[in-house]
Amino acid sequence: MITPFDIDAAAARIAGRIRHTPVLALAADELGLGFSVTLKLELLQHAGSFKPRGAFNRILSAGAIPPAGVIAASGGNHGAAVAYAAQALGITAEIFVPELTPSAKRARIESFCARLMRVGAIYDEALAASRLRQTETGALEVHAFDHPAVLAGQGTVAREFEAAAPDLTHVLVATGGGGLIGGMAAWYGGRTQLISVEPEGCPCLHDALAAGRPVPSPVGGIAADALGGRQAGAEMFPLAQRFVAAAVLVPDAAIAAAQRLLWDRLRLVAEPGGATALAALLCGAFVPPQGARVGVLLCGSNTDPGFLSV
Amino acid sequence: MITPFDIDAAAARIAGRIRHTPVLALAADELGLGFSVTLKLELLQHAGSFKPRGAFNRILSAGAIPPAGVIAASGGNHGAAVAYAAQALGITAEIFVPELTPSAKRARIESFCARLMRVGAIYDEALAASRLRQTETGALEVHAFDHPAVLAGQGTVAREFEAAAPDLTHVLVATGGGGLIGGMAAWYGGRTQLISVEPEGCPCLHDALAAGRPVPSPVGGIAADALGGRQAGAEMFPLAQRFVAAAVLVPDAAIAAAQRLLWDRLRLVAEPGGATALAALLCGAFVPPQGARVGVLLCGSNTDPGFLSV
Repeated sequence: MITPFDIDAAAARIAGRIRHTPVLALAADELGLGFSVTLKLELLQHAGSFKPRGAFNRILSAGAIPPAGVIAASGGNHGAAVAYAAQALGITAEIFVPELTPSAKRARIESFCARLMRVGAIYDEALAASRLRQTETGALEVHAFDHPAVLAGQGTVAREFEAAAPDLTHVLVATGGGGLIGGMAAWYGGRTQLISVEPEGCPCLHDALAAGRPVPSPVGGIAADALGGRQAGAEMFPLAQRFVAAAVLVPDAAIAAAQRLLWDRLRLVAEPGGATALAALLCGAFVPPQGARVGVLLCGSNTDPGFLSV
Repeated sequence: MITPFDIDAAAARIAGRIRHTPVLALAADELGLGFSVTLKLELLQHAGSFKPRGAFNRILSAGAIPPAGVIAASGGNHGAAVAYAAQALGITAEIFVPELTPSAKRARIESFCARLMRVGAIYDEALAASRLRQTETGALEVHAFDHPAVLAGQGTVAREFEAAAPDLTHVLVATGGGGLIGGMAAWYGGRTQLISVEPEGCPCLHDALAAGRPVPSPVGGIAADALGGRQAGAEMFPLAQRFVAAAVLVPDAAIAAAQRLLWDRLRLVAEPGGATALAALLCGAFVPPQGARVGVLLCGSNTDPGFLSV
């Protein structure tokens, strides 16, 4: 399992490559919840999600990069992050996305001059195709979540969040394959109650914790492009077992309501996966105890904002 | 002229009513400018712009509120702020907007349960109508910019910005009637070079400084709903003469480019007036000297984000 020392090292490695995203403390009545919430605006990160943290840490800790550059499979955000990082570092990137990846994310990946391949229905099928391709090219695989360097990179967001808001008792975070929450769990180590939030349509960490091991789960719903891993990562699972306090599920309607609320009250545009953690508070899937000081990570904004037109 | 003491008092008066908006420091290469820029994300303020600062300070410092409540004329953002403040304080609000106020702003005003009146082509005509109405109702006028309490309230944004980023040498801010830059000028008092940015279509402070007194100017272009005062305020003008280092103009195309850049690079949605200050850096209307540490206030986001669809 990765440790806070790995995350310290990652933070030093990626400093200057990623944005130190701001925190916004909301008063008790602002979201109608009766308690205050502190948001980390990680949706303002480069390439529109937290993913460059892990991508940079993986690439910068890999040693020599093969002539074929890097290769990754992704629902979209990780692909954009790898493409962004590769462009910044002057290396080639090939990104495999499934059919469900929305056009806003495909455009984002191509805007960073990566070679984009569209294969398979869901992320796991794109991953299989990327691995086949990798055996041909010898490119460095940058896994979307199941690698220690990726976990350590994503963990830097918890390190920043704790520095800016050290007194939080609970932090809610959306979970896909588990790279983000795994890294954050390694950082917090139980000092702060970490709450995993998944859409009902993509319950892989919830199912894994219930089964005692990663198991295949369904992949569906409005956040499947961001949170649609079929199975929780092997690298993150022991961290989740030890340091994730609860894994809750939210319906798609609550995610859409959270997106609308973020725009109406805060003028923030979140993609469905980026609003999923907040949705758990709005719909009551997670109810913090009296006196809790609650943090929420807003993790992605790669969407077409036209859906917010009225 | 208002002083920093008035701004300190305003900050104490409105504390808990407004958001302490975050600051985001960008590295030198992020916007392609060759120098770093620190943004204050005041577009995340309640009601979508900086305006609640002045509105709350004006209302809370007025003493007893008349039975008819408050009345204001506005291009939209001030009206939304007054409506928001009135709702928060449990008083009635009547808001006059001109024809050019976009539907997103009218909807915002009505969402806070204010009575909305649409009169005249531009702000100044809506103001005249609101003043006639005020003589009938006796409501408290909350002027959009030309009142010491409004200036002092807006000045609190400079007080926050300086606390978060004390070493800035230059701060760029968009100017309409001048309430915002007037309040900020009173706070900075020349310690930081304050740069006024106006659209070429709404040059009232630029024209006033050239003439040595507020004079009527044209009102037009894509930011006219936010920055379309016909004439700079009498209360702010001496502050601008003394403490505004430069007043530059930008074309509408640069404003639109700044809006697009804020979305593409930062996932922030700014209305035209909210992106006007940044536009001056992008188009070279203001070129900071070597070694400058530049701040930009992003001041408003009340727009339909559908324009960002691709």
